[in-house]
Amino acid sequence: MTTAQFTASEIASVLQKLRDHKPLVHNLTNQVVMNVSANALLAIGASPIMSHAPEELEELGMAVSSTVINIGTLDNVTVASKLTAARIARDSNKPWALDPVGAGATQFRLDVTNRLLDLRPAVIRCNASEAIAIALHQRGGSGVDSNDSSDEVLPVLHRAARNLQTVFAVTGRHDYVTDGQRLAKLSNGHPMMAAVTGTGCQSTAITGAFLAIEQDPWLAAVASLAVFGIAGQLAAEESAGPGSLQLKMLDRLYTLTAEDIEQHLVIECQNLSE
Amino acid sequence: MTTAQFTASEIASVLQKLRDHKPLVHNLTNQVVMNVSANALLAIGASPIMSHAPEELEELGMAVSSTVINIGTLDNVTVASKLTAARIARDSNKPWALDPVGAGATQFRLDVTNRLLDLRPAVIRCNASEAIAIALHQRGGSGVDSNDSSDEVLPVLHRAARNLQTVFAVTGRHDYVTDGQRLAKLSNGHPMMAAVTGTGCQSTAITGAFLAIEQDPWLAAVASLAVFGIAGQLAAEESAGPGSLQLKMLDRLYTLTAEDIEQHLVIECQNLSE
Amino acid sequence: MTTAQFTASEIASVLQKLRDHKPLVHNLTNQVVMNVSANALLAIGASPIMSHAPEELEELGMAVSSTVINIGTLDNVTVASKLTAARIARDSNKPWALDPVGAGATQFRLDVTNRLLDLRPAVIRCNASEAIAIALHQRGGSGVDSNDSSDEVLPVLHRAARNLQTVFAVTGRHDYVTDGQRLAKLSNGHPMMAAVTGTGCQSTAITGAFLAIEQDPWLAAVASLAVFGIAGQLAAEESAGPGSLQLKMLDRLYTLTAEDIEQHLVIECQNLSE
Repeated sequence: MTTAQFTASEIASVLQKLRDHKPLVHNLTNQVVMNVSANALLAIGASPIMSHAPEELEELGMAVSSTVINIGTLDNVTVASKLTAARIARDSNKPWALDPVGAGATQFRLDVTNRLLDLRPAVIRCNASEAIAIALHQRGGSGVDSNDSSDEVLPVLHRAARNLQTVFAVTGRHDYVTDGQRLAKLSNGHPMMAAVTGTGCQSTAITGAFLAIEQDPWLAAVASLAVFGIAGQLAAEESAGPGSLQLKMLDRLYTLTAEDIEQHLVIECQNLSE
Repeated sequence: MTTAQFTASEIASVLQKLRDHKPLVHNLTNQVVMNVSANALLAIGASPIMSHAPEELEELGMAVSSTVINIGTLDNVTVASKLTAARIARDSNKPWALDPVGAGATQFRLDVTNRLLDLRPAVIRCNASEAIAIALHQRGGSGVDSNDSSDEVLPVLHRAARNLQTVFAVTGRHDYVTDGQRLAKLSNGHPMMAAVTGTGCQSTAITGAFLAIEQDPWLAAVASLAVFGIAGQLAAEESAGPGSLQLKMLDRLYTLTAEDIEQHLVIECQNLSE
Repeated sequence: MTTAQFTASEIASVLQKLRDHKPLVHNLTNQVVMNVSANALLAIGASPIMSHAPEELEELGMAVSSTVINIGTLDNVTVASKLTAARIARDSNKPWALDPVGAGATQFRLDVTNRLLDLRPAVIRCNASEAIAIALHQRGGSGVDSNDSSDEVLPVLHRAARNLQTVFAVTGRHDYVTDGQRLAKLSNGHPMMAAVTGTGCQSTAITGAFLAIEQDPWLAAVASLAVFGIAGQLAAEESAGPGSLQLKMLDRLYTLTAEDIEQHLVIECQNLSE
């Protein structure tokens, strides 16, 4: 059992390391969130590169510290590029984060997700519907917004995390991060975040940045969701609506201090018995 | 003759119905406005899905309540996808809204628009230049911004609406919504909205959301433009420039109340004699 | 030697001319910055058109006053379209601006850049790493953010500008604009601008707008970077972070006055001896 006190300061120190190292992160994401995801990476202190060009994936893969792959707005070129980038990351032992947007919404997305799972993402950041679709290998959920409560799906996720040797970072009313051995429950964030498109995609992007500087992917994901949730919560408190929230989240990611994390982090950690 | 008083409360109740039902709207739009259009749909209370992937159009078409098709930033994949999505919508008797961006600017866009018109959009949301290009089957207008005053083109539009069995929702200094039998003239909005890219595209997107819950497409379009115009006008009054305006419009779409609509709606409705 | 006093009023008058003429600018840019670049063009007073569709490049090329080509997020369709648009601009003697995003980061980008250089951009707006890659025909720099100080590369740039018969507009801590005969050093802007994605892309976009109304490309680039730097600096002073900065820059581009330019411009100009 890790105490929240300890974790808050640990998270702050991981964030500081990220800002010091300014890791180069290759973000193969969807067209809806490209701008805000690049901005989220810059705001947290990383250096984003956004490219699906097959001609340069190999070179970019050599240069970057981590990769983020998001399956929104797919086409035949970008599917191939995402698979190639994931393969390059795996073959060079660099961590990558998967965002399986709407994985259960269509058979096509589920198929693409399954092909990507074979290439061993370090972390899968998704909502509860997407997590269930992955864990149970079946379609479900309508569209890209989640209908499932995170609470109901935990035992399934622990098992899937062990089987896939990955970390599930499932965001919702509460956030859950499990590698099958350890579980963190984070209770930061704000309901208005669901009214901004791509908040999940942004959290996956910065999870990629944390993976670049923290070797334990479970801790990287916990730190990422903690930082993102606190930034979102502080931003929501000063936002009249979701338009303001989208930009104030970037402001908060940029200015977030160790004190902000200490004061606001709400986390419970536990070791799981198999 | 519908009085404005009556219509304001009717519009507020349509908006409430939209928020209660949270319809899933498939938005095949251009790359410039994808983020802000998804955010506009979320802000008004809908659930957006943004995809041009041919592999999932059929499944998405079954799942959604309405579709929006916007012809900015075309390529050979997206043209085919837009035509397919429109055909699926028509064949399943679900409403779809067309945004013929720059329809008169190039022969290519006019051709794509004409192919889409064959698939019977419930509403065409456009500016005056685009409306004339469609109604007269000819090129005109420079670029994607409008040079024509909405006022001059009304008789042409009434005829075209009857011939195409659609609703023209033409935005500009005043907004006009005609199905050839009924005309609404809306005088909300603010000139600064023309300095924000994709305000038209956003209004088409939310028109798609209103089509999902209001069976009369003329009323859906009137409600949509009324809500959008009032949100834009209130947002402009508190914006130092177009950057602020883009986000404050999202805030206002999210928070708009029945009282806001009652206080600010400026509408004239009339029955047309053929 | 041009005095700053003189240049401030000259710049203000070029800006006024731009706002009066509202030139149509074709912007073939990357997917990350499409929205904000279109908004920057609108905010400065231009009318943007954003399209890579091969079917309409010829018609658009005839209609527009200038073109902007940015090589971020390339694919095989967009590379071909950018080359075609540049060729059309050259053949019709219309100015075009090049943004060689990450030119030194991969061999692919360097190759595409070199093919575009053959088509004679009026201005190359880039950072120091990209400028060196172009001037020395070699790879270097990591990712799309610059590692090189502008100050070190000036002699190389003067030579390259003469050889390529173009203007280098290199942004960084200071901005440098050289055509090999004349050098302007601009010291506006703010460090936080580097934490917003695509500020460089935006400055290239508005440089394209200035090229449309100012025949001397060196002066167009100086005016563009002066206006953009001052707008960014004023915006940064009122921004809590990079999210706010992105939108307040648009507000400031829209509202910038001759007085703002007079009060804030920091420029040194000199004639170069060959």
